[in-house]
Amino acid sequence: MFRKITIIGPGLLGGSIGLAARHRKLAQRVALWARRPEAADEAWKLGAADEAGTDLHKAVADAELVVLATPIGVMETLAQQFKPALAENCIVTDVGSVKYPVVAALGGLLPRFVGSHPMAGSEQSGIEAARRDLFEKAACIVTPTETTDKAALQTVYDFWKAIGCNVRTLSPVEHDEIVARISHLPHLVAAAVVNIVCNNGSHPLEFVGPGFKDFTRIAGGPPEMWTEICQQNRQEIGRALESLIEELGKMRAALENNDGVELKAMLKRAKHFRDELRFRV
Amino acid sequence: MFRKITIIGPGLLGGSIGLAARHRKLAQRVALWARRPEAADEAWKLGAADEAGTDLHKAVADAELVVLATPIGVMETLAQQFKPALAENCIVTDVGSVKYPVVAALGGLLPRFVGSHPMAGSEQSGIEAARRDLFEKAACIVTPTETTDKAALQTVYDFWKAIGCNVRTLSPVEHDEIVARISHLPHLVAAAVVNIVCNNGSHPLEFVGPGFKDFTRIAGGPPEMWTEICQQNRQEIGRALESLIEELGKMRAALENNDGVELKAMLKRAKHFRDELRFRV
Repeated sequence: MFRKITIIGPGLLGGSIGLAARHRKLAQRVALWARRPEAADEAWKLGAADEAGTDLHKAVADAELVVLATPIGVMETLAQQFKPALAENCIVTDVGSVKYPVVAALGGLLPRFVGSHPMAGSEQSGIEAARRDLFEKAACIVTPTETTDKAALQTVYDFWKAIGCNVRTLSPVEHDEIVARISHLPHLVAAAVVNIVCNNGSHPLEFVGPGFKDFTRIAGGPPEMWTEICQQNRQEIGRALESLIEELGKMRAALENNDGVELKAMLKRAKHFRDELRFRV
Repeated sequence: MFRKITIIGPGLLGGSIGLAARHRKLAQRVALWARRPEAADEAWKLGAADEAGTDLHKAVADAELVVLATPIGVMETLAQQFKPALAENCIVTDVGSVKYPVVAALGGLLPRFVGSHPMAGSEQSGIEAARRDLFEKAACIVTPTETTDKAALQTVYDFWKAIGCNVRTLSPVEHDEIVARISHLPHLVAAAVVNIVCNNGSHPLEFVGPGFKDFTRIAGGPPEMWTEICQQNRQEIGRALESLIEELGKMRAALENNDGVELKAMLKRAKHFRDELRFRV
């Protein structure tokens, strides 16, 4: 149990971490920092923190664990700002969806930084969508490097486990390669399909079934956040997009040749893998 | 209310139509035909029909409405086989996912045929997955042509409405163009993404979150059925695939150029349309 955990950023993830940490009694005090006073107030009212405010130094003072839950692009600046106020042994982690650039920037700045990525977002955003069970059974990837403090890594690992996650360890590069394919690529593809379905002023949405709804749900996510994520991981996503375009080209060729054998082989392979997922998660 | 409705084919859709028709008392008798006696027995035991058997002529005799709920590829042969046993005014419809080839074949064969497509499948299949509420609020597209009998069209329209569907009318060609984009394309794309995620013996499925699960759910559908659907609608799907590959190429270019403005515009557009769907369905 921690004496004090500080969450930086009152969004869906920050709010849910606060709710979960308080519900599971992981800390004597959960503090939350927000840029806007209204956001801090709302987080406090929703029970996401014992104390919430806009004073960054006050927020992190005496914390044993600081969790950065802001957009990736402002993490380094915030870390530079709160660093002077950190207790000597304070551990810092984050929830960013891309790990190489974050770990490179913050790992150099903070001696006890450990990168994390709890994979529990949704197409919703904002603290209104926060839930204390958001992380239950969610995968969380922690991304140590050779220079990561071993004790800090263990603490961060245990923290996510205590929040309810299934914790896994990957290098930042491995992480970015995998999430490019299982998260960032699907997001772009869902958006692309919605865009071509709704082009030319045609709106066939009244005809769609539950399959299309599920398939495109992620396209409802916040564009600003996803643009930033995609830009931060643009090389890996570019490679994934290339693989996908190649695979779709094979499907198009199979259709052109009316090659049912090839088409069925591709669909069978996908079903085999997808069924594995059904039983696993 | 019908005196007798006959369902040809004991799968997810046929079984669910039987359950719904009996539950909503749309007919004095619901008959079901299956190729295999075990399948007929199971449909009867599950309550999907008042009578179920493998004798096609007996199944359709005296029916006022026959619903073809088999794979598309066998519909024409079955219709030829049961045609001599149809009552004079019997109306026939189907549930096929592709309409132009079905309507062309059956519309010529049966004077009171009306093509239908209730969009209520799922990645599951088989009568075990049948549910009497499968069609509630589902879109159902009926696809008359210039030669379709008007009274038969009205009856089929009313039937799907009474089953619980939101019924819409499109020409067979319009239907195939739209479902290529909202159903067949997403299916192929979900399969393609699963395949590139799981290639090279890598199985990063343990890391996936709810977004990936939703996005790829349809890839769990039966490969035989989907291969047939895709082959039957291969021209429209080919065009949709081309549009998608083009759209993905634009995204790849935006990533290569690190063009956040362009990328955000695409994601915003998709979110705009997807949010409409959230409030509509």
